Amino acid sequence: MIIAGTPVTGTGPQIRGFDPAAGQQLDPVYRYGDANDVQAAAAAAAEAFPVYRATTAEARARFLDDIAARLEAAGEGLIARAVAESGLPQPRITGELGRTTGQLRLFAEVLREGSWNGARIDTAQPDRTPVPRPDVRQRFIPLGPVAVFSASNFPLAFSVAGGDTASALAAGCPVVVKGHDAHPGTSEIVARAVTAAVADAGLPPGTFSLLFGTGPGLGTALVSDPRIKAVGFTGSRGGGLALAAAAAARPEPIPVYAEMSSINPVFLLPGALGGRGAELGRAFIGSLTLGSGQFCTNPGLIVAVDGPGLDAFVAAARAALAAAPATAMLTPVIAGNYAAGVQKLAARAELVGRGEPGGETTCHAALFTTDAQTFLASDDLQAEVFGSSSLIVRCADTAEMQAVARGIEGQLTATVHADESDHDVARELLPLLELKAGRVLFDGWPTGVEVCHAMVHGGPFPATSDSRTTSVGSRAIERFLRPVAYQNVPKALLPSAVADGNPDGLWRRVDGVLVSPAEGP
Amino acid sequence: MIIAGTPVTGTGPQIRGFDPAAGQQLDPVYRYGDANDVQAAAAAAAEAFPVYRATTAEARARFLDDIAARLEAAGEGLIARAVAESGLPQPRITGELGRTTGQLRLFAEVLREGSWNGARIDTAQPDRTPVPRPDVRQRFIPLGPVAVFSASNFPLAFSVAGGDTASALAAGCPVVVKGHDAHPGTSEIVARAVTAAVADAGLPPGTFSLLFGTGPGLGTALVSDPRIKAVGFTGSRGGGLALAAAAAARPEPIPVYAEMSSINPVFLLPGALGGRGAELGRAFIGSLTLGSGQFCTNPGLIVAVDGPGLDAFVAAARAALAAAPATAMLTPVIAGNYAAGVQKLAARAELVGRGEPGGETTCHAALFTTDAQTFLASDDLQAEVFGSSSLIVRCADTAEMQAVARGIEGQLTATVHADESDHDVARELLPLLELKAGRVLFDGWPTGVEVCHAMVHGGPFPATSDSRTTSVGSRAIERFLRPVAYQNVPKALLPSAVADGNPDGLWRRVDGVLVSPAEGP
Repeated sequence: MIIAGTPVTGTGPQIRGFDPAAGQQLDPVYRYGDANDVQAAAAAAAEAFPVYRATTAEARARFLDDIAARLEAAGEGLIARAVAESGLPQPRITGELGRTTGQLRLFAEVLREGSWNGARIDTAQPDRTPVPRPDVRQRFIPLGPVAVFSASNFPLAFSVAGGDTASALAAGCPVVVKGHDAHPGTSEIVARAVTAAVADAGLPPGTFSLLFGTGPGLGTALVSDPRIKAVGFTGSRGGGLALAAAAAARPEPIPVYAEMSSINPVFLLPGALGGRGAELGRAFIGSLTLGSGQFCTNPGLIVAVDGPGLDAFVAAARAALAAAPATAMLTPVIAGNYAAGVQKLAARAELVGRGEPGGETTCHAALFTTDAQTFLASDDLQAEVFGSSSLIVRCADTAEMQAVARGIEGQLTATVHADESDHDVARELLPLLELKAGRVLFDGWPTGVEVCHAMVHGGPFPATSDSRTTSVGSRAIERFLRPVAYQNVPKALLPSAVADGNPDGLWRRVDGVLVSPAEGP
Repeated sequence: MIIAGTPVTGTGPQIRGFDPAAGQQLDPVYRYGDANDVQAAAAAAAEAFPVYRATTAEARARFLDDIAARLEAAGEGLIARAVAESGLPQPRITGELGRTTGQLRLFAEVLREGSWNGARIDTAQPDRTPVPRPDVRQRFIPLGPVAVFSASNFPLAFSVAGGDTASALAAGCPVVVKGHDAHPGTSEIVARAVTAAVADAGLPPGTFSLLFGTGPGLGTALVSDPRIKAVGFTGSRGGGLALAAAAAARPEPIPVYAEMSSINPVFLLPGALGGRGAELGRAFIGSLTLGSGQFCTNPGLIVAVDGPGLDAFVAAARAALAAAPATAMLTPVIAGNYAAGVQKLAARAELVGRGEPGGETTCHAALFTTDAQTFLASDDLQAEVFGSSSLIVRCADTAEMQAVARGIEGQLTATVHADESDHDVARELLPLLELKAGRVLFDGWPTGVEVCHAMVHGGPFPATSDSRTTSVGSRAIERFLRPVAYQNVPKALLPSAVADGNPDGLWRRVDGVLVSPAEGP
């Protein structure tokens, strides 16, 4: 572990990285921390907070850029370790490193652009009757130290220096990461890079810490620590709900941004299915088996009207699936949960086909089918199976497709494949889907989340614990900020974001109107 | 009650309005509703939601304007009833009606301005390698039906058509109000005006309902109803925490915006106190006794360095207080709670003085003092006493004032009185106060909340259950919205907020850059 700049070996149980492709344990040995380590990291973060939040946006942008550069410098060694600890192919991890550094640089860009300040000025009207209007100004300030829980499935992009950490650091919040057991070595390399960047920037060492430990033990202690003011989490529904419950039970409740569970329904509309059923079936299996299906956005549900188009889709999917090699899963535990989830589906739905069989820790991809009425009557058929597993729901007509859209839980994504002949059906479906999902996409597959300004990686419960935000894209910084109003504060004491003369060069809302940096007070 | 346009008399216990100034019950009799009424209102709201949210921003703006006009038309009768049911003076209620219609019109203005859509467009890059960048667009959509709990202390501005209702309706959310027992007649008049506006606009009747009932009974049932997607509440800490717990315990948790408890510390810095201690003392009592102290922003804590300046302040405050007449409190229950709170303070702090004594349902204003160490060691001394009651904390020096600033809970407001000679002290204090409060104000008093774009009426727990928002000012609409991303959605199917050609004439963020309605795609 690294607590406020100092490497610390815990006193708890030993853990080691595990290479799921080779089936062997990796050196060195790591050890879990305990409540004392949580205390130390949280205390250091609280001490760092007033100093870190007072840094300029430019200073934090340079800091994030520096972390990105250091991760790139760690390059081959970092990639090799992440490949070994995840069983994911090297091109995927190389791409993920690019995404991770891209996220850090996106938030540096966000900091420099400045709209995150939410600067507003309502000018005084001293002569207003019956009472004068005061001068009121508003900006956003950071919430305080943030606890980040790494995900297993993105050892770089949703881990130690992933999106949650990048957005929290950008907001001005110190970060305490609970590293994931699946990749302790990767976590250490990344944490050392962040720690070096903290030191080089002259920031307080408590700006960043990395801990190891169990979720129920160390994780709950971290979320319950009074100095922690918000939580970012990507993982299972059970894990996310436990952290949300711990946060709600605090004397001072705090926001929890838990990204949890989604089966990412894909609606194949009649025109698209009729014209290119087989092509869609093959592409679907490509998305389903990518990364052993270990994506939050894996297409776990196909919804379509029964008929020759769907038959062609199913036949092509079955053939593509049969040729899909068994690929390593992230950890033996995840492989075990996957096998159990598939077994549950097998008891409730009809098997369409499976991929090539493999060993105990590989993903033996599985595809099932059922009818809409059975699906709508069963909560179990809606449960996420983490890994390459999907269920085709056969509908009698497009009205039944709409009923499925109404009947599903909240999702990260909802996908529609539509030809122009389908637009009338799609127009009816779209409002239903946007109420259920954070992202609605057409004529593609949900895997692959673009890191950009307009992205929403979020959605109604249980996809996340807080649908008002996104964990990917530039809006993610807003999760760790809150507005403060300054009324009649003397000009000499105003924060620069809302000071006269606009020293930070920001877009500001003045008396309700957006004003560019070139204009305005 | 009015459920989806239809007047309904409940089957529960009877309630009646009560005139606290005259000490007499008012006609007519009202009756509490029950779980069936909650079901009916929630079902109607859910049915109304898809239709109501599909209205244009202009249609909703006209609807809000119409509610405002109808409240003005209700004029004298409405004001008279609110005065009778609250015991508040007529000029105050007349002003509050203006504030209420002003809030409705502010949200109409917000709707027409359009930035609430949060429209973003990231353009496609089909030639990007290794993978093309999709077209991604983002806008905000409403959460769904909202439950609003009226406050006792603002029978118009924080009640049936108050800020929560106005902002939720603006967002596109149907509203189910639980009216406050303290003003059922006022609630009925306002609800009839809203209902008429719903009908005139041709909106679904379920867009608005008013229920009566207890918090633990009907209120909890309302928050627990699966069709309700967010909650606005203004009231006690106990009430807010109970609703937050009910919301967190749902199978699908929902956001609760509860404004609860704040003692609104006022820091008198040495220069200001030395120069105008007596003047400040008199002004303080004016703020403390306004509306019998029944404001969320009542100044319940004065923090200052001991010495001749503070002595002058205290002497002037004591004299002004002694001349302050006993004024009616909103309800006998509130008067009883006030008396008990004052008694608790009296057991733990030294009495400075009291206002004129009155009857059982009047506010017998009270002022106490203690030293900083005693204050910091006692949670009881930080408890809000709803009504004209305040505690002066005598500090040894400005360092001890800072210790008090660090030691207090979250607040709606923090006030500083400072002369130019105090700016160095104020510069140290300001960062501490902005971490504790939603609004920091200088050289005024916290009572009186300007309804404008930059206002924050919110703050860290326990001031509110969610410090990331405000319940007053134009940003309040954001509480009831969430972002949705549209990826590669066919142009013919895109929502107008993010459609090509910008048909809604919005400011939009295009590839990360703010673009005015006159420019851009």
